[in-house]
Amino acid sequence: MGIHEECGVFGIFSRTGGNGISQSCYYGLFALQHRGQESCGIAVNDDGKITCLKDMGLVGEVFNHDNLDKLKGTIAIGHVRYSTTGSSTKDNAQPLVSQYVKGTISIAHNGNLTNCNTLRKELEDNGAIFQTTVDSEVIAYMVAGVRSVSPSIEDAVRSVMEKIEGGYALLVMSPRKLIAARDPYGLKPLVMGELNGDTVFASETCALSACGASFIRDVEPGEIVIADDDGVHSVMTPARKRAGCIFEYIYFARPDSIIDGVSVYESRIKAGKLLYEQHPVDADIVIGVPESGLDAALGFSQASGIPYVKGFVKNNYIGRTFIKPSQEQRQDSVRIKLNPIESAVKGKRVVMTDDSIVRGTTIANIVRMLRQAGALEVHVRISSPPFLYPCYYGTDVPSREKLIAVKHTIPQICQMIGADSLGYLDVNSLHELTGLKEGQKNFCDACFTGDYPNAEYGIDLLNGGGEDLEK
Amino acid sequence: MGIHEECGVFGIFSRTGGNGISQSCYYGLFALQHRGQESCGIAVNDDGKITCLKDMGLVGEVFNHDNLDKLKGTIAIGHVRYSTTGSSTKDNAQPLVSQYVKGTISIAHNGNLTNCNTLRKELEDNGAIFQTTVDSEVIAYMVAGVRSVSPSIEDAVRSVMEKIEGGYALLVMSPRKLIAARDPYGLKPLVMGELNGDTVFASETCALSACGASFIRDVEPGEIVIADDDGVHSVMTPARKRAGCIFEYIYFARPDSIIDGVSVYESRIKAGKLLYEQHPVDADIVIGVPESGLDAALGFSQASGIPYVKGFVKNNYIGRTFIKPSQEQRQDSVRIKLNPIESAVKGKRVVMTDDSIVRGTTIANIVRMLRQAGALEVHVRISSPPFLYPCYYGTDVPSREKLIAVKHTIPQICQMIGADSLGYLDVNSLHELTGLKEGQKNFCDACFTGDYPNAEYGIDLLNGGGEDLEK
Amino acid sequence: MGIHEECGVFGIFSRTGGNGISQSCYYGLFALQHRGQESCGIAVNDDGKITCLKDMGLVGEVFNHDNLDKLKGTIAIGHVRYSTTGSSTKDNAQPLVSQYVKGTISIAHNGNLTNCNTLRKELEDNGAIFQTTVDSEVIAYMVAGVRSVSPSIEDAVRSVMEKIEGGYALLVMSPRKLIAARDPYGLKPLVMGELNGDTVFASETCALSACGASFIRDVEPGEIVIADDDGVHSVMTPARKRAGCIFEYIYFARPDSIIDGVSVYESRIKAGKLLYEQHPVDADIVIGVPESGLDAALGFSQASGIPYVKGFVKNNYIGRTFIKPSQEQRQDSVRIKLNPIESAVKGKRVVMTDDSIVRGTTIANIVRMLRQAGALEVHVRISSPPFLYPCYYGTDVPSREKLIAVKHTIPQICQMIGADSLGYLDVNSLHELTGLKEGQKNFCDACFTGDYPNAEYGIDLLNGGGEDLEK
Amino acid sequence: MGIHEECGVFGIFSRTGGNGISQSCYYGLFALQHRGQESCGIAVNDDGKITCLKDMGLVGEVFNHDNLDKLKGTIAIGHVRYSTTGSSTKDNAQPLVSQYVKGTISIAHNGNLTNCNTLRKELEDNGAIFQTTVDSEVIAYMVAGVRSVSPSIEDAVRSVMEKIEGGYALLVMSPRKLIAARDPYGLKPLVMGELNGDTVFASETCALSACGASFIRDVEPGEIVIADDDGVHSVMTPARKRAGCIFEYIYFARPDSIIDGVSVYESRIKAGKLLYEQHPVDADIVIGVPESGLDAALGFSQASGIPYVKGFVKNNYIGRTFIKPSQEQRQDSVRIKLNPIESAVKGKRVVMTDDSIVRGTTIANIVRMLRQAGALEVHVRISSPPFLYPCYYGTDVPSREKLIAVKHTIPQICQMIGADSLGYLDVNSLHELTGLKEGQKNFCDACFTGDYPNAEYGIDLLNGGGEDLEK
Repeated sequence: MGIHEECGVFGIFSRTGGNGISQSCYYGLFALQHRGQESCGIAVNDDGKITCLKDMGLVGEVFNHDNLDKLKGTIAIGHVRYSTTGSSTKDNAQPLVSQYVKGTISIAHNGNLTNCNTLRKELEDNGAIFQTTVDSEVIAYMVAGVRSVSPSIEDAVRSVMEKIEGGYALLVMSPRKLIAARDPYGLKPLVMGELNGDTVFASETCALSACGASFIRDVEPGEIVIADDDGVHSVMTPARKRAGCIFEYIYFARPDSIIDGVSVYESRIKAGKLLYEQHPVDADIVIGVPESGLDAALGFSQASGIPYVKGFVKNNYIGRTFIKPSQEQRQDSVRIKLNPIESAVKGKRVVMTDDSIVRGTTIANIVRMLRQAGALEVHVRISSPPFLYPCYYGTDVPSREKLIAVKHTIPQICQMIGADSLGYLDVNSLHELTGLKEGQKNFCDACFTGDYPNAEYGIDLLNGGGEDLEK
Repeated sequence: MGIHEECGVFGIFSRTGGNGISQSCYYGLFALQHRGQESCGIAVNDDGKITCLKDMGLVGEVFNHDNLDKLKGTIAIGHVRYSTTGSSTKDNAQPLVSQYVKGTISIAHNGNLTNCNTLRKELEDNGAIFQTTVDSEVIAYMVAGVRSVSPSIEDAVRSVMEKIEGGYALLVMSPRKLIAARDPYGLKPLVMGELNGDTVFASETCALSACGASFIRDVEPGEIVIADDDGVHSVMTPARKRAGCIFEYIYFARPDSIIDGVSVYESRIKAGKLLYEQHPVDADIVIGVPESGLDAALGFSQASGIPYVKGFVKNNYIGRTFIKPSQEQRQDSVRIKLNPIESAVKGKRVVMTDDSIVRGTTIANIVRMLRQAGALEVHVRISSPPFLYPCYYGTDVPSREKLIAVKHTIPQICQMIGADSLGYLDVNSLHELTGLKEGQKNFCDACFTGDYPNAEYGIDLLNGGGEDLEK
Repeated sequence: MGIHEECGVFGIFSRTGGNGISQSCYYGLFALQHRGQESCGIAVNDDGKITCLKDMGLVGEVFNHDNLDKLKGTIAIGHVRYSTTGSSTKDNAQPLVSQYVKGTISIAHNGNLTNCNTLRKELEDNGAIFQTTVDSEVIAYMVAGVRSVSPSIEDAVRSVMEKIEGGYALLVMSPRKLIAARDPYGLKPLVMGELNGDTVFASETCALSACGASFIRDVEPGEIVIADDDGVHSVMTPARKRAGCIFEYIYFARPDSIIDGVSVYESRIKAGKLLYEQHPVDADIVIGVPESGLDAALGFSQASGIPYVKGFVKNNYIGRTFIKPSQEQRQDSVRIKLNPIESAVKGKRVVMTDDSIVRGTTIANIVRMLRQAGALEVHVRISSPPFLYPCYYGTDVPSREKLIAVKHTIPQICQMIGADSLGYLDVNSLHELTGLKEGQKNFCDACFTGDYPNAEYGIDLLNGGGEDLEK
Repeated sequence: MGIHEECGVFGIFSRTGGNGISQSCYYGLFALQHRGQESCGIAVNDDGKITCLKDMGLVGEVFNHDNLDKLKGTIAIGHVRYSTTGSSTKDNAQPLVSQYVKGTISIAHNGNLTNCNTLRKELEDNGAIFQTTVDSEVIAYMVAGVRSVSPSIEDAVRSVMEKIEGGYALLVMSPRKLIAARDPYGLKPLVMGELNGDTVFASETCALSACGASFIRDVEPGEIVIADDDGVHSVMTPARKRAGCIFEYIYFARPDSIIDGVSVYESRIKAGKLLYEQHPVDADIVIGVPESGLDAALGFSQASGIPYVKGFVKNNYIGRTFIKPSQEQRQDSVRIKLNPIESAVKGKRVVMTDDSIVRGTTIANIVRMLRQAGALEVHVRISSPPFLYPCYYGTDVPSREKLIAVKHTIPQICQMIGADSLGYLDVNSLHELTGLKEGQKNFCDACFTGDYPNAEYGIDLLNGGGEDLEK
């Protein structure tokens, strides 16, 4: 609801002839569609060459039987992308295919380099030209530059990882190898699986399920995993203090995924339970804002004993081409996407959970709808702490002046959204979402605290926290 | 899950200049999209003429700002359609616009005439030609024929209703009037609303919500409601024993809709409660098959006290162009659309609710997935009785030989789908879904019982229960 | 240049299994594309059913390998259509497929019924409804109505031909027969050919060439030709005084076609020769306005001995989606479609031929361009007499008030278009185009003379001369 | 007919606010469409940024009112491209937009660098990566590299021109300047025009006409012309012996264009006259193969006195999606695109001119068609010498083994194509096409003679003469 993940990646290395790898990639990307709906692409190695098909649109729109059948090879990488930029985004679709002195590589990546502008400037000073605004092109340049003096592509990737800062899950395909790399904090998720002897990498485990692969293990922070005809081997670069993005658990990831050993679904149930502990209230029913608020509602219900009911119907047919209501129709616009079930909420004191509040306008509309439907009281519970700081690692958080919690106290926000009470998840309880003890911390909560894991290594502030220069 | 509603209708008569009526129609149809995803259309009266735009595809695909803005007028009717037929369906999209001796009419309709073939034959014997295979064209002919000797269009509709048999919700637009008619059994739902002085008709109340209209009342079985510049007036044709389609409550309708005074959501909760009463079981969790099985799971949980949890993640990005897995990939195909949440079901004795079983193959896959995810036991509870008979009123039930319950006993089905136990809703308890006392019946349950409301008036068996001749 | 033919038809009956008939139809329609660029369609009989694919666009846009391969059968009819109407024309695309009491028929037709409104009214009075505004639907009704009491489909067509008035080339396909019929004046062209034992019908012989068929003969005015498994046989209805459209020779038809025994190309060469005889001038070069004015220029050159040169380059890449210049750019707009070859015309006294003048604006621009390119004199010669009357037989001539020759004398027109001299073909010499002697007449020249062949049988003036009611 | 030009360029620098420059670019590219039909694009500077829209397809397909209106700015460059490569060509569409250390540049270019592979290798050795296979990306790299140490963009272009070899017409747009450069031989055409105070560059003068600009002068071989707010100024790099591509006159350019002071149309007329002088024949008519053979036919007719007639009708509706006839239909396939006018050629001894013979298969079909149409004799006259050598400057000549004249004598070819006689234009008379005296030469005729203008500077043979590495 206003916060967007920027990308998902999927890769497969076949040792069994490559039959159906573009199809596997298709289903994998399909399961990662929630991580990016703007553009998508698949690149395959094909007899020493790399062929890539990418375009604006959903996986199901860009690919069809015909064009998928033409993507033949034994290695494939794929990408789904979200972007806030407008017209020029077709150029920014991934994977990126580059020809360099040693041949061809293709790169797909999720995340953001916090020193991207600095690196880009250095490359430009040495004569580089850029045709896109994505970090992947910077990475491709650096890999190409190092590769010319490196014994292997994985060695080049290792060298590049010493220079890039930020959060990333990276897939690099050369005509003979598939390389997966994860940033030294583990900010972005990346897992490895196995499908009938083939090696698979994906942003989330749900993509393994979708293509029929079994989960092997997470790629470790700072790890480089190389899949080739000889099998799979691993190179470790110096890891730093583990700091996986906590918002993957709260909102981004699919609830059936397991990230770094922790079930996303269980985290959300836990968040709901904590919300009750931290902000108990006497009420008749608990409901969640679909889809991302539903799990916390279940947890709240379990902890409180207050019955969980379905409060809303969400219209899932809303696609990219949906015509938004005009200004005069906007008042009720939210009832098009979301409609309260009057018979469920009428005359009830309602606890309503959602994952976050960004600007506050959407949730204010939802609260008003509930009251129109006859809810006597509306107690809002948010399964994350207030958003206060920008993310520099690839999440599209609006600028600070648009974040309602930056300029307003919680009681003020409560009033602004028209709720009877408002409770956020205590920032000091976030460790419980990943099953840690008090005082332990293995995650990044910078968007709530301003505590950036790589602050000491410098964050390229000009970059503005977004992936695109144009933002 | 294998059973499809065939259509949804929406209409609006403006007394306030018609500003935005095509937009209201768009949002209304959008909310009815679950009733038909194959084609859609909107017709508007425009200065004595009727303009219609219709095509294959979802409401959000067919309409855009440009083409919607061109649909100006003071009356609009719209339609969403599901169809099992193949290539020629573009011709079958509705609304249907016809020119006849007294001018132009447009018709949109949901349902099926059980004597359509007979009526069609009569018309053809008198020289009629048909360019589509939809019932609406037969109705248009009959209205045109009667209209030439009738004092008014509503009078013509009344005469036609004396001759047509079956279930229907019908909207007829002449350049100056909007007429809504419902079959004498009330088999198909149809409601009236009001939007800033304009009169609105829709298949379900959720469409009223979506366009900002307020609910006035249901159109009664056998009633003709005429909206014109003078206001709204009603004509009653002889009603028969009320027999609204019970499957609207069980599966078709959106849970936020209220049909003939009964909340669809509450019916489904009730079905879940009855399932527990009729088929209790000792288990750890209750889950539902998304989306239509979730509400019954909540009811089962409430009645039994067994915790309700989320068992599956459903991928909502599956669209019309989705590439289905090939034969060799099919085994796991269902994990692409639906994936169990392993952390929620592992090691648990699971009660799983769904709305119905048609062929049994899908649910068998789902049960197997649950076991693969670690469920110890899987107890399937179905919130409807077994399907045994075809529907002649516009619902796409497969032929009898494909219905698993026709040839197998419940214990056999239980074994075939791999469940530990299987319980269907008792057909004798259906009255509870609509809040009636035992022995009362105001609904059609023919697909479970073979008790067709208009059996005595003859059902045109050649018609095969489907809407299309081609079936 | 402002005057448009409305349609072209093509049909094929296969006795050899039907292999490739939709492809033959495709190439035939392709060769008839000059007769209509707005919509096109092909219908095939298929196992007792008739399948039709039609849409807005050129033949090369609507059809592709995939959809053409699906059009299998042993009989096919096709249609290309031009229309001046706007949004609703998709419904008006042909062939029209209709189901009636005796089965299914499909109709494609070129031309216009002059008593269409009367016939339509009669049908409506008997309860008919219409979903399009094309004459074909009226014909379909009438055939269906008569067929129910006729021994055969050809007998029904014969009966219908007794009632319809106007110009038409008609193809009717039943599941087992292909019937071609031509109006009793022969106003619209229609030929028969043979392709490896299969029977072919087409509006022009160029379509026979394109699909590899050989020319057999013209269908005669008033003739009905029936192709079925037994071969080809003919039924004559009472013919009237032959009156083929003279404008087919002057402009509509392709120059490689032969209509009723007369080469279109030779007619145009002849027109150019006559223009020199009737309006000689002393000049340096003769040029034609591409494409339709080029042949008359050749004839003028041959008769006069003045050298023929290429005066203009025409841009053939202009398609349906071409963006027309805005008001301020319009002055020179014609140089986008047409550009003079300066080196050819500079310093020259130029004779320029064109086929007709409708409003006069286009030719005024062309004359001005020639002067800007350095032409010393521009003598315009028009290979037809002045347009003075509407066409009621299917040609889209603008209304009289827009015809420049209705309100202005030839000297006035000469001045208005900026020419040094202007000469039209003498209306009394038109017989020479078809090789007749003076005083003989076997053609319709009503648009020049107002002498309508079927005036005595009544022309339905309300119909306005156009094919569509909406015009 | 088998030989393809690779590109056309258009650029405009506005000093009057830029109103309508993308429209001017559209019309300019439209007039250059014959130089490339595969992809096209327009880039505009916009407030320091450069926005580019490019895609596969014709100018009229890629651009529409909406997307053209969004291309606002004061400088625009555009490109049309032909390519023989398949799937990946979308990436190769131009203009190319690159960001480098000093900002952004966009490049559009026609031609081929003969040392491209060498240059590319050098750049890759220095770490460059390439995302396309077009020369423009090499040029962009080089300009970017030099620009970082150059005082101005034009200075950088000058430096780069010292290193690149081959034939090119180059447009470079920086946010404030538009630079046009032409190779030192003048192999590729490039002209300058003026439109209401704005400066325009284009591959041919016909593009100036189309947008309403007046011709100023040709850009000279080796010249760099810079348009900025201060006006237009010129920088000369060392020119070499002038060697404009002679095939522009024979086939590529539009006949209404004037290249380096010589009318293309007059060249073709002259070629026809020379053909008669060199290969006279007694015949009844002269015809040309449309479109490119028509002008030589006129010249032949003028010189010989044998009447010029129209021999064929060409179907101009053939677009990119045209379905080619299958193997068994191919025999007559050429009659779909081209059909003889039987009445014109029957019983005649025919001289037929065409611009060139590549493989010989097409012209053999055409000769056979003429005989089938009744031609008594067919004398083929080709308005160019035999093709014997590859072109390394951007023209798509097939490989030598496919050139019929490489392995066969003229009498053999005459027999292979079924002609009664065959005459090619004498290679020693080519100077007459550009109005030179005997022994003078200012053109490149390497495809006929193997005399490559820059042979002494080395031609990168690996490059294979094509623009794309993939060829």
